[in-house]
Amino acid sequence: MMDDRQVEQIVREVIRQRSADGKETPAQKKAAREETAHCTRMTLELALKLIEKVQERAAQWNMRVVTAVSDAAGHPVAVQCMDGAYIGSFDVALNKTYTSIAFQMSTEKLGRLSTPGESLYGIQFTNQGRIVIFGGGELLEQNGEIIGALGVSGGTARQDTELAAYGKTVFEEVIACL
Amino acid sequence: MMDDRQVEQIVREVIRQRSADGKETPAQKKAAREETAHCTRMTLELALKLIEKVQERAAQWNMRVVTAVSDAAGHPVAVQCMDGAYIGSFDVALNKTYTSIAFQMSTEKLGRLSTPGESLYGIQFTNQGRIVIFGGGELLEQNGEIIGALGVSGGTARQDTELAAYGKTVFEEVIACL
Amino acid sequence: MMDDRQVEQIVREVIRQRSADGKETPAQKKAAREETAHCTRMTLELALKLIEKVQERAAQWNMRVVTAVSDAAGHPVAVQCMDGAYIGSFDVALNKTYTSIAFQMSTEKLGRLSTPGESLYGIQFTNQGRIVIFGGGELLEQNGEIIGALGVSGGTARQDTELAAYGKTVFEEVIACL
Amino acid sequence: MMDDRQVEQIVREVIRQRSADGKETPAQKKAAREETAHCTRMTLELALKLIEKVQERAAQWNMRVVTAVSDAAGHPVAVQCMDGAYIGSFDVALNKTYTSIAFQMSTEKLGRLSTPGESLYGIQFTNQGRIVIFGGGELLEQNGEIIGALGVSGGTARQDTELAAYGKTVFEEVIACL
Repeated sequence: MMDDRQVEQIVREVIRQRSADGKETPAQKKAAREETAHCTRMTLELALKLIEKVQERAAQWNMRVVTAVSDAAGHPVAVQCMDGAYIGSFDVALNKTYTSIAFQMSTEKLGRLSTPGESLYGIQFTNQGRIVIFGGGELLEQNGEIIGALGVSGGTARQDTELAAYGKTVFEEVIACL
Repeated sequence: MMDDRQVEQIVREVIRQRSADGKETPAQKKAAREETAHCTRMTLELALKLIEKVQERAAQWNMRVVTAVSDAAGHPVAVQCMDGAYIGSFDVALNKTYTSIAFQMSTEKLGRLSTPGESLYGIQFTNQGRIVIFGGGELLEQNGEIIGALGVSGGTARQDTELAAYGKTVFEEVIACL
Repeated sequence: MMDDRQVEQIVREVIRQRSADGKETPAQKKAAREETAHCTRMTLELALKLIEKVQERAAQWNMRVVTAVSDAAGHPVAVQCMDGAYIGSFDVALNKTYTSIAFQMSTEKLGRLSTPGESLYGIQFTNQGRIVIFGGGELLEQNGEIIGALGVSGGTARQDTELAAYGKTVFEEVIACL
Repeated sequence: MMDDRQVEQIVREVIRQRSADGKETPAQKKAAREETAHCTRMTLELALKLIEKVQERAAQWNMRVVTAVSDAAGHPVAVQCMDGAYIGSFDVALNKTYTSIAFQMSTEKLGRLSTPGESLYGIQFTNQGRIVIFGGGELLEQNGEIIGALGVSGGTARQDTELAAYGKTVFEEVIACL
């Protein structure tokens, strides 16, 4: 899924640029393409920058969390456990990224939809125990493309939700395509 | 094993420093070492003493339970099944200790936080089925340090909760650092 | 968290004793406390320093690996996937740390002991699929104390073995107790 | 199955006694039956006595082991981890009891039959990872009836095998029907 979209985006971008001016040198075009490509996939470098920011904020909020970042396919890129984080949070943070990617929404939203009586009640029993249904998992997007997910665990559901929302914003406004 | 060795190393350091000071007799040093080592880690001896007390109380209450004790990392130290206990209680008692350590609270408290509508609803679907969300799992502390967990299973949730609370008290007031 | 607290408690005891002796300055006490605490437990800071070194070496060897570091109880502290690493290596690297801790030896050694005809053949089918029996998992020690484990995955078994051995050496000679 | 056998044994015993003499009072017969019944099932008391003996011997041999005892149905009755035993040995000791009961033979024998080319090769991949195929698991019998199993883990396969064989002998000669 990721690859199709990446290719699509790059092709559209190249076409747009050509249409706009038809003036670039091949070297300029190559540089532009590489920059764009860089922006549409999760790298270890981006993941670590995001985790660093999230941990700084967690420390300010007196939280000790596990932070996980996955790519657009839901595969983990980096996970870090702050000293003193819960042992049980590793699994939770990691699977918040998986859950966000698996159903293309935040775990907070999925949580609302999966309470008894709601439309997705029961989703939490699927996917071999990897679905997490409380806040702390967010999609990471860039120019409308999903390029990964963030999962944090260690505080209350509300704290985790706020910390992940912070991480999503920081990533999308600051980190991606630095 | 980690705990033993860690404690050992630190204790050796203490002894070395005291030797440098030249102020204590070997007997004093030995006593200090044993006191320190004994109070900060779960041992099989402590676990068995606790299980014995819990089973005595269970018998008084006409319960037949499985009792498990883990160390501070959530690894089991001893498990015992009273004659006639449920087959299914072995897994439950064992995982009550894991759950208590994994999220650093009693399973009774986690149970309240994980009902639909509460902040941790869904935590029970994480950690590969090892999370138990009804009473009977308690942290075991000594001087504010978590040194293990107790899990009992066999009665109603209320009975298990009361029995585990009894065990926690007995451990902290009587058994640890005898 | 256990480790922090355990160490803390013991360190407080040391400080109390020293205060009684009245022989050290506060700065000396602080240095002693930090030295002791620092050397006997895995921290996120140490784990990240080690992973950085391992990844530098992996890059020199033209490998793209997943690197995991656990504490002495086998619980993960940090995991990082170099860009282009195999998806399947996350599980392998993580479980190499678990395996090393679970049986207190490198996965390369366990691998030799678990081939058909050898004394531990079959160990690989225990512990719910978490046992890895080829090289790339190493214990991390400091002054003879096991304080964690390193797991790398991404190359051939031989490459992983050599990379993990490098990481073990770097950790024990350079990183721990910086 | 166990129950059938127990009943069978008791019935045979009663018939034998009647044939032999036809002289017992009802009270004598009842006492004899109860004694026999007691001898054909595993109790927590018997399990703990056996574990104590096994641990004494392990200490003499300088081993730190996990010892598990199950009943004739393969369900655990008691498990104890000596201080410093491997984390990974809990699963192994426990499943050695299961394996012995599951296929009604020692794990050492099953190990020989399950190497590549032998008649049971592949058995180790069944039963959800609960089959252990190296020594340390033994059936516990009394008067030809299987009443439980013993599993020890912590040493080399040879050490575990010898320790379990010792435990089997002690149980059958000394402990059962004390």
